[in-house]
Amino acid sequence: MQILRRERSALQRALERAHDPQVLSLALGLPAPEMFPSDELGIAAGDGLLQGRTALQYGIPEQRLKGHVVELMRRRGVECAEDEIILTTGAQQGLSLLAQLLLPGTENAIMVEEAVYPGFRQAVEPYCPTLVPIPIDLSCGIDIETAERVLRNRPRPAFLYTMSAGHNPLSLTMSADARQALVDLSLRHDLPIVEDDVYGFLQYDECPAPPLCSLSRDSVFYVGSFSKILAPALRIGWIVAPRDCITTLSVLKEGSDINTGTLAQRIVCRYLDSYSLPDHIERLRSEYKVRRDAMHAALLKSFPSGVHWRRPSAGFYFWVESDSFGDTTELLEDALKQRVAFLPGAAFSVASNQQYNRAMRLNFSHCCAQTIHQAVTRIATIVQERSARPLAAAG
Amino acid sequence: MQILRRERSALQRALERAHDPQVLSLALGLPAPEMFPSDELGIAAGDGLLQGRTALQYGIPEQRLKGHVVELMRRRGVECAEDEIILTTGAQQGLSLLAQLLLPGTENAIMVEEAVYPGFRQAVEPYCPTLVPIPIDLSCGIDIETAERVLRNRPRPAFLYTMSAGHNPLSLTMSADARQALVDLSLRHDLPIVEDDVYGFLQYDECPAPPLCSLSRDSVFYVGSFSKILAPALRIGWIVAPRDCITTLSVLKEGSDINTGTLAQRIVCRYLDSYSLPDHIERLRSEYKVRRDAMHAALLKSFPSGVHWRRPSAGFYFWVESDSFGDTTELLEDALKQRVAFLPGAAFSVASNQQYNRAMRLNFSHCCAQTIHQAVTRIATIVQERSARPLAAAG
Repeated sequence: MQILRRERSALQRALERAHDPQVLSLALGLPAPEMFPSDELGIAAGDGLLQGRTALQYGIPEQRLKGHVVELMRRRGVECAEDEIILTTGAQQGLSLLAQLLLPGTENAIMVEEAVYPGFRQAVEPYCPTLVPIPIDLSCGIDIETAERVLRNRPRPAFLYTMSAGHNPLSLTMSADARQALVDLSLRHDLPIVEDDVYGFLQYDECPAPPLCSLSRDSVFYVGSFSKILAPALRIGWIVAPRDCITTLSVLKEGSDINTGTLAQRIVCRYLDSYSLPDHIERLRSEYKVRRDAMHAALLKSFPSGVHWRRPSAGFYFWVESDSFGDTTELLEDALKQRVAFLPGAAFSVASNQQYNRAMRLNFSHCCAQTIHQAVTRIATIVQERSARPLAAAG
Repeated sequence: MQILRRERSALQRALERAHDPQVLSLALGLPAPEMFPSDELGIAAGDGLLQGRTALQYGIPEQRLKGHVVELMRRRGVECAEDEIILTTGAQQGLSLLAQLLLPGTENAIMVEEAVYPGFRQAVEPYCPTLVPIPIDLSCGIDIETAERVLRNRPRPAFLYTMSAGHNPLSLTMSADARQALVDLSLRHDLPIVEDDVYGFLQYDECPAPPLCSLSRDSVFYVGSFSKILAPALRIGWIVAPRDCITTLSVLKEGSDINTGTLAQRIVCRYLDSYSLPDHIERLRSEYKVRRDAMHAALLKSFPSGVHWRRPSAGFYFWVESDSFGDTTELLEDALKQRVAFLPGAAFSVASNQQYNRAMRLNFSHCCAQTIHQAVTRIATIVQERSARPLAAAG
């Protein structure tokens, strides 16, 4: 028989290794477990189960939960209605459903930034799209001029995928001007945008940027999630889409897994009924800001020169580049032997641009400040040892 | 922009209507909610949350839960190991992942029976396969001779999809000979089988038939689920597949929704640690047998002649056929006005065979015996009224 063959992704391998408690892991995008409101979610679970046996049955999407999402989106700067929302099994399923919605044609191309969340590539892979990478400027985002030129010279891709806040892996949050320019491009070329905003609620400095979706409800499909702001294990995310796409999306959703777990929906809904998610997000912001600043300080101390990064204003990651790293995929092998982990730039790259091979993504959300400091120091030592080694090997 | 358009399925519409408590619904494949072990699952949920905050985090598949599945499969007559199992977000995702695994080629055809679970069609639709329907004999299953002829005369389909026990919608459970003949066909033609066994644990008469998978582990991909035997809201199912397909399946799974909800996995695992699922299944069998017999009696009473069905030995459904029904899609419209529901045969048909338009699927698992009796009586009255009507209309 003929079957598909796929290798385990770098993320998947890292997830397995990260379960080794001996490894100081900055590899994954895990939220801080000690910040989970586990007592409150326990009460919500108990309430959900007590509400009756419908909590254990198949069910239609919880209308009240959609109402909560509308309220949450309003705080994010987006006006939408319950009938513009699809509840999904996490943001990952949101990406998969939007790929199905937007890739029906013969031109299965997607415009992406040169460095992309690998889960996005996995979500769209079953539909065999061509990825059209566009360079990104770490200070302001996707290179609009290049995108414009590409759009003039080839058939229009089915959509553009981006993260406007806390970009994974590049840690960029787009300025108001950059966001407007991207939406203008989208409208000029009738190019839908899939906006992955799973980090949008976690902005650490003044004046959080509203999503692209707030600038154009017609051309932007928004993907959100409770995974980073409540708990990933519940697997609840959502799509905000133009109203005339909702029926198709709900049919595709049903085909994927029938319905989003009723019990998990009830737990989130009861939590949102009883507690203030904005207050919880405020606590997360405050703690993650401490961790971000700890990583920034650790990097400054460990890499006084020749290593480049920007302190992120949102999200979970630092993107750190240096020629002194050599190939970071090889560096990771050494790092794992010394029980510290990060993700190498190559895991994210869709470009031929070699600079990504000399970059790493460091997560600051999962570990406490002290562990972050230890892990960054250990990585710096390994980099120093490696840069000393080639001379010895050549001699 | 170019987007896909899909209409809401008959099942999805029925699911919405079935939430109207005024409707006596025999339409959906819902388990009996009063049989959910909700107290035990509540305790398991509390235990799961108390086990630590990892229950709320992303996680790798629970090895202990895979161990429980191995044990469950052994009771089902199948020897397998933990590394031959993929945990899925319900059986529906299992079907979707197997479609991705087995449909990589240019020959995206699937051999199916003439009447198919509509969720299967939805699961495979994103990969645009051609369906090759084979007639089915309601007494013994798929017509092997026709299948053989089709396989000789066209490129081999990517796989064959079937349910060997409690077929949805045809309510057939294949005999030992029919199962062996189908597996032999599969081996002769190197044609993989995707076996959907979500009803396999719910067999009501003596000597439950083991799945096709017990006859050939190399050519049969098995899909199981806790939805019908524990609770659908947990969204936990599994695939048993040849060991060399597991890595690819786990990569495809990650692309679909990252991981099966950790909390739901823990709840099922704790339940299985603390309680006897075989005892629970025994209680389900006993109750569903009462309901099946109630439906059989109600059909005998309401339709003394000219209406055909077999009393199912497994699963959740009766498949009822009669020329006196006319077109059952039209009949359903009348039925809904009178607040009773079933699913029309056309919702399942992939054949040009008109007989499916004069059939209906009746569910007996969801309602108690008294409601089943009321609903069948009401449907019979509507059939009688309709068969009287054309004369009046013509006059």
